[in-house]
Amino acid sequence: MAITIAELARALDARFWGEDSLTVTGAAEPAQTPPVEGGSGLIAMAMSPRYAAALAPGSMALLAEGMDPETYGLRAAIFAPRPRLVMAGLTRAFDPGPDIAPGIHPSAVIDPSARIGEGAAIAPFVVIGAGVEIGPGARIGAHVSIGRGSRIGAEAVIHPGARIAHGVIAGDRLIVQPGASIGGDGFSFVTPEESGIEEIRRTLGTREGIKAQHWTRIHSLGGVEIGDDVEIGANATIDRGTIRATRVGSGTKIDNLVQLGHNVVVGRDCLLCGLVGVAGSSRIGDRVVLAGQVGVSDNIEIGDDVIAGGATKIFTRVPSGRVVLGNPAVKMETQMEIQKAVRRLPRVMQQLSKFQESVTRLLEKG
Amino acid sequence: MAITIAELARALDARFWGEDSLTVTGAAEPAQTPPVEGGSGLIAMAMSPRYAAALAPGSMALLAEGMDPETYGLRAAIFAPRPRLVMAGLTRAFDPGPDIAPGIHPSAVIDPSARIGEGAAIAPFVVIGAGVEIGPGARIGAHVSIGRGSRIGAEAVIHPGARIAHGVIAGDRLIVQPGASIGGDGFSFVTPEESGIEEIRRTLGTREGIKAQHWTRIHSLGGVEIGDDVEIGANATIDRGTIRATRVGSGTKIDNLVQLGHNVVVGRDCLLCGLVGVAGSSRIGDRVVLAGQVGVSDNIEIGDDVIAGGATKIFTRVPSGRVVLGNPAVKMETQMEIQKAVRRLPRVMQQLSKFQESVTRLLEKG
Amino acid sequence: MAITIAELARALDARFWGEDSLTVTGAAEPAQTPPVEGGSGLIAMAMSPRYAAALAPGSMALLAEGMDPETYGLRAAIFAPRPRLVMAGLTRAFDPGPDIAPGIHPSAVIDPSARIGEGAAIAPFVVIGAGVEIGPGARIGAHVSIGRGSRIGAEAVIHPGARIAHGVIAGDRLIVQPGASIGGDGFSFVTPEESGIEEIRRTLGTREGIKAQHWTRIHSLGGVEIGDDVEIGANATIDRGTIRATRVGSGTKIDNLVQLGHNVVVGRDCLLCGLVGVAGSSRIGDRVVLAGQVGVSDNIEIGDDVIAGGATKIFTRVPSGRVVLGNPAVKMETQMEIQKAVRRLPRVMQQLSKFQESVTRLLEKG
Repeated sequence: MAITIAELARALDARFWGEDSLTVTGAAEPAQTPPVEGGSGLIAMAMSPRYAAALAPGSMALLAEGMDPETYGLRAAIFAPRPRLVMAGLTRAFDPGPDIAPGIHPSAVIDPSARIGEGAAIAPFVVIGAGVEIGPGARIGAHVSIGRGSRIGAEAVIHPGARIAHGVIAGDRLIVQPGASIGGDGFSFVTPEESGIEEIRRTLGTREGIKAQHWTRIHSLGGVEIGDDVEIGANATIDRGTIRATRVGSGTKIDNLVQLGHNVVVGRDCLLCGLVGVAGSSRIGDRVVLAGQVGVSDNIEIGDDVIAGGATKIFTRVPSGRVVLGNPAVKMETQMEIQKAVRRLPRVMQQLSKFQESVTRLLEKG
Repeated sequence: MAITIAELARALDARFWGEDSLTVTGAAEPAQTPPVEGGSGLIAMAMSPRYAAALAPGSMALLAEGMDPETYGLRAAIFAPRPRLVMAGLTRAFDPGPDIAPGIHPSAVIDPSARIGEGAAIAPFVVIGAGVEIGPGARIGAHVSIGRGSRIGAEAVIHPGARIAHGVIAGDRLIVQPGASIGGDGFSFVTPEESGIEEIRRTLGTREGIKAQHWTRIHSLGGVEIGDDVEIGANATIDRGTIRATRVGSGTKIDNLVQLGHNVVVGRDCLLCGLVGVAGSSRIGDRVVLAGQVGVSDNIEIGDDVIAGGATKIFTRVPSGRVVLGNPAVKMETQMEIQKAVRRLPRVMQQLSKFQESVTRLLEKG
Repeated sequence: MAITIAELARALDARFWGEDSLTVTGAAEPAQTPPVEGGSGLIAMAMSPRYAAALAPGSMALLAEGMDPETYGLRAAIFAPRPRLVMAGLTRAFDPGPDIAPGIHPSAVIDPSARIGEGAAIAPFVVIGAGVEIGPGARIGAHVSIGRGSRIGAEAVIHPGARIAHGVIAGDRLIVQPGASIGGDGFSFVTPEESGIEEIRRTLGTREGIKAQHWTRIHSLGGVEIGDDVEIGANATIDRGTIRATRVGSGTKIDNLVQLGHNVVVGRDCLLCGLVGVAGSSRIGDRVVLAGQVGVSDNIEIGDDVIAGGATKIFTRVPSGRVVLGNPAVKMETQMEIQKAVRRLPRVMQQLSKFQESVTRLLEKG
């Protein structure tokens, strides 16, 4: 892709300075951005004075408001009022997109009853089941499998090796990173008699007798329902529901290696970061952010707008709007106090035992 | 599938009420279950009075003992003495099974020395190595690879994209969810001189000198041995052993994104939930339950019937029958007391420092 | 493979005892090693007196220095001064290697512009994009996909189903276990207005107002750069960088289900164990060891030679050479003291409240 820097500024809805006819061919860090040559070159990402030191005179750059392009000897600059937002537009402009050629590769095995939307691209060795619908403009990468009756919306991008089982209904602009599994069977088993887990949940930890227990499988008849504009990370796993579907709301973004159990409901515009696990049947509200390695127990509810810090372990209901941290999860400020107190604890205990001794001695005297 | 409700009750070994000739075509939640039409319809899962409010008059339902079908205006009902157990039977009855057509797809690449059992189904683009044995009735999904000399038992279901390396010996009715990897190489390395990790294990945290260290690979000659009736979750990973095999006992169920290191031994009828990690050479007894995100250090032993709560981190041996929780793992009731105490800690510390001050002042006076 | 025991000892640079002409055909645990028959057999791994009890008289064994082969009635023995190092050599000698036939399988779909090195092996259903370079002697397993412009060095082994996106540059002897994903898109989003996460980072936990927020995607233009002698575990995920590449230094070993976010830099000769997560833009030094389930927050720095114990959660910078443990991470010895104090806490609190009462009573009297 190549675009003039003035056009790029217009596309980003951002202020422009300098020679408007220079052509931008890509983006790079300041140290990797040479001066413009022959009227075209890269644009340097220098959205803080800290990064600007490495700018080459004669180059183009993206700057924060308030930075002076002349100081750095630039030939042209774009100003980013909210730098990460401008990054979004700029990276989209230069992303050549995934490696999926247009058209349907002859090696793909597509059930005759499947319907492939106009302009959809299907890569080598893809397997598509009966009754599947692929939306217009969707791109399906190499080695993807899509089970019978699943529907993928328009302009979806399914990266190589992603696994979409049967009965998965997804909206438009779905992005699935490599190796993600959507619609695997739920992890749901039952013992003929009360199991050890049921016993300790009932007794809060006490076990009266330990018996042999074999696990009988509860099959997963529900599918997975996914809204519009959802992204699912590499090797993430979303299990199908037992009776009704597991659900992910529109606008929600799921990172690599996240696990969503059967029957889980995730609301709209959530962020679930890497290695998050949500156990079966839990419900997560809208705009919830779960940082990396957060865990959510089964059958609990997380309200809207909850934010959980890194590695928080959530065992009980969290009301809407709360910011939580720690294992077990408590309010973030409470956790901060606890951490401070715990760090002081060994010293305080030593002091206390001395204090106790001397007071005891004094009182015995008295 | 369609079956009369009376036949279904018999198959589930459950009590029946109402019109015995109605045909059941599937299961749904009460709100999604319309009244029976033309003598057939869905059966609503309403195994608690809480769910029963949404039942449509004229429909069929699965109820808990003690609930009255006439109150809800039902035409037929099945009673579930242990609801989840009935769910197991019912969902099995209506599960159409995975999306793997009978027969061997012509695109599959199968070594001539491999033996494929009677009635086995092999999907497109499967790759099967030399000397592999596939049991009768097994179904192998699209894009699965099975390395030389591996054996898969009868009636196994290997979902799309699962990776079974060479030298994996598995029993009957094995279920492998999409993308799971069985028999990857162990993560086992050694430095020519003592490494930093060995040093801190020896000194309990002190390091005398820090040296460059390159890692030399210990190859994995052992395979993986898996019993009967084992299930392995989506994108889970089970590494092969170094000299002998990594082992998973019969009846054990392993959830998505679980990691079992080389030489690990897991007993029978265990449940290992999502994102559990068990490091190399640890041994886990029978009927052990590890909840989501539990971690087990290398080279330790977990006894039979141990239950570890969510995100418990186990660094040392756990005796049989114990229920553990926390990081590091302690008895569940101890952990509950610790959590209560820790939560009160910031306040108690404040009170104490005031108390100390006033006592000190009084004693100085005295 | 078969080799005389004397040749094996020479290859391992280890001392030899006994009949030098016996042939070794493989390695096993002592209990699985029968006596030598017809001049050839397995060698038993008995590198500690503990394991030696199970040795069969008339067999061959690998022993630790100081153990006496005559006591066990062996016919030949090799002495391992540093047992695990000898294991490395021995297991390498007997590893038949992965299941990838020489040559290029006719089913592979290889862009005509790709360059395949001499002696490289390419398995069935591999897909290789435009401009890809595969080094000499590299072996690419079944169902692997490699995106346009990526480069894989000499003697690499890419196991089945691994996903290498476009723009991934890797050195020699790279090993990628099954299902790993290298070069998926970064998890990077921005809201037009300040998001809840930005707010709580600014205010340390307080939220003034909660607003709707939609996530706009920041695309990933950078690739992934990987040094020589790197190993990447099964179903691990390494995201591509935003503007510059995500980087993994030479000699670093990454275990199964590890997640490295966009822009992460990992140094040389590190070990990252199973289920470790490193969030976007963090930098990890050389020779760092992160044990299983460790988490590293985004945008922080871990110095050289840091060792983090199992499940440590690192939220802030760690200076070089430090050994850390706990959530949040503190020095290992500090964490040990904290754990001891926390375990005593419930009892100490009870004692204290009694002590407080009796002192208060005494003081009131006085």
